[in-house]
Amino acid sequence: MAADILDLSADVVTLARELCDLPSVSGDETRLADAVEAALREHPHLEVLRDGDTVVARTHLGRARRVVVAGHLDTVPVTGNLPTRLEDGVLWGRGTVDMKAGVAVQLVLAATLTDPVHDVTWVFYDHEEVDASLSGLGRVVRHHPDWVGGDFAVLCEPTAAGLEGGCNGTLRAEVRLRGVAAHSARSWTGVNAVHAAGDVLTRLAAYRPADVEVEGLVFREGLNAVLVHGGTATNVIPDACVVTVNYRFAPSRTVEEAEAHVREVLPGYDVVVVDAAAGARPGLDDPTAQDFAAAVLEVTGGRPSAKQGWTDVARFSALGLPAVNFGPGDPLLAHTQDERCPVDQIHACLAALRGWLTGRRPEGLPLGTS
Amino acid sequence: MAADILDLSADVVTLARELCDLPSVSGDETRLADAVEAALREHPHLEVLRDGDTVVARTHLGRARRVVVAGHLDTVPVTGNLPTRLEDGVLWGRGTVDMKAGVAVQLVLAATLTDPVHDVTWVFYDHEEVDASLSGLGRVVRHHPDWVGGDFAVLCEPTAAGLEGGCNGTLRAEVRLRGVAAHSARSWTGVNAVHAAGDVLTRLAAYRPADVEVEGLVFREGLNAVLVHGGTATNVIPDACVVTVNYRFAPSRTVEEAEAHVREVLPGYDVVVVDAAAGARPGLDDPTAQDFAAAVLEVTGGRPSAKQGWTDVARFSALGLPAVNFGPGDPLLAHTQDERCPVDQIHACLAALRGWLTGRRPEGLPLGTS
Repeated sequence: MAADILDLSADVVTLARELCDLPSVSGDETRLADAVEAALREHPHLEVLRDGDTVVARTHLGRARRVVVAGHLDTVPVTGNLPTRLEDGVLWGRGTVDMKAGVAVQLVLAATLTDPVHDVTWVFYDHEEVDASLSGLGRVVRHHPDWVGGDFAVLCEPTAAGLEGGCNGTLRAEVRLRGVAAHSARSWTGVNAVHAAGDVLTRLAAYRPADVEVEGLVFREGLNAVLVHGGTATNVIPDACVVTVNYRFAPSRTVEEAEAHVREVLPGYDVVVVDAAAGARPGLDDPTAQDFAAAVLEVTGGRPSAKQGWTDVARFSALGLPAVNFGPGDPLLAHTQDERCPVDQIHACLAALRGWLTGRRPEGLPLGTS
Repeated sequence: MAADILDLSADVVTLARELCDLPSVSGDETRLADAVEAALREHPHLEVLRDGDTVVARTHLGRARRVVVAGHLDTVPVTGNLPTRLEDGVLWGRGTVDMKAGVAVQLVLAATLTDPVHDVTWVFYDHEEVDASLSGLGRVVRHHPDWVGGDFAVLCEPTAAGLEGGCNGTLRAEVRLRGVAAHSARSWTGVNAVHAAGDVLTRLAAYRPADVEVEGLVFREGLNAVLVHGGTATNVIPDACVVTVNYRFAPSRTVEEAEAHVREVLPGYDVVVVDAAAGARPGLDDPTAQDFAAAVLEVTGGRPSAKQGWTDVARFSALGLPAVNFGPGDPLLAHTQDERCPVDQIHACLAALRGWLTGRRPEGLPLGTS
């Protein structure tokens, strides 16, 4: 097959469509990664690196600060929602929100900003939409931590072109309930483990999650049963039941504090943590972040808010880089059949990032005024 | 393969071992049914009938009353617990309790009682240990109701050689809970269906089942969650949860009353009955039953008690025949790896049934005195 050619000098929406129309479901990103790598290698102001299907391109201009602008190349499975279509200023199709419009913004800027005010590391990574252990960004952090070092990071995940700082942490735990099996015709000879889940679920139903302010942003927490399974047959008193809970916790809490809180809500129960990832503080007190926020707000007119879902900003945060989310598309439409992104938001993100990285007032109009 | 030969003039324990050592897991009863049919056809005082793998043998002596003595030929799967072994007066192995020792008692008496005081219909049926819709007894009731007509029935299911009257009914229902799915990072946008199960399970945990006296016997009820399933992924607020409940109810309640009771315990919930079977009254006020009870008690020295689990006595009850359970083996050992039956109980059941059907004092000694 002939190599795919991406024209990084094209209009950003045209490029976003080309990226979406070249499917790259998690695990199948090689073709797109090849095209991205080849297109970036045309630009001598960039050093281009590759690890698996992750492509990194960076400037070496000797600037005082280095910023990382990152996005992932993979999408969740296509469900008949490709090729893209453009209707009334809205781009429809898989990947338009999560997150190839953001990748298009990155690529246009990577190719055209030969003289940015900060050194920039552009990261295009694989395997974001699957188990966190497969993450291309995580792999690069392990293999080549120097490739993603810097002073500040922007993750182009969809935020509807708003600035979302930090992210909540996430912890999953199993509440394991045990009983004694018996024939259900003689239930008094057993102990019903499913009945024991009644108290656990009632506590979770009554739980009122906190809104936690961290560095001026409000993070909404949540503690929920996400799975419950118990029983083996309709004539047997169940001897086991497992309630899986997911706690989304503010970035002001550590994983250890989050675990302690779950145990406090479910005292005396056998709680086994299955996985956990800390959140990320907004980092908006960093001067580069404030500069970025100002550039974004000049275009979008909105205020920074908290990112509720866990994102890879937490990986940057763990590396010591303050990190924010900023990209086109409504995150609530990510992964949906009707995934779609307003073209306005793509232009707004492009303008805001260009304004920040060139130090010039964005040439775009405030969002919603065009 | 040469036909298997069963010697019905053998000692009842020897015959029980032969029956067990000829495996007949549900669906695979033909070989045993063939052997039973052939052995019974050797006895001219019996009319022998066959439907599928059910064999019926009956006398036609013009007695005033006809009694049915029934047992099933199938077992649950063998789990390395065959061939049988006899140790210290205990017969070990699959089928020894449920219920080939009982079948051996039936076969010995069918062959030897040429002049019983009641006409007797001996029933040996297939597919008892599987879905009730497959029951060989149910099939015969549908195809040839006259084959199983009579005035009183004894089902040789294990009762540890005690007389157990009637049986509880059973009803299964699904309690269907619904919510609204959402990403668990934004749980406030959803409604958690698993949390809604908390109240259902708490009500079931707090439920105190009744002991219900019916015709002098006490039936213990039970209402339990036997299965619970909810949720699809660990990052999604569940939009559905199903709690399956099993209500074991006294034979004094109809199925409709049982259903109404479940709805009363779980008011306002979406309760869908999945299957239900009425119980059976003890029927011990019937003169033939009283005569039988006297014969049994002379041997075992015990008192009649209630059968808690649903058994095929309910099918006879539905046909208008009072029916009781009476057979060797502890029902709590049925289906277990360690299934085993005291030889004493096999002899006691043989003696009691022989005494009743011959009208003579049983020649056996009271159980436990030998």
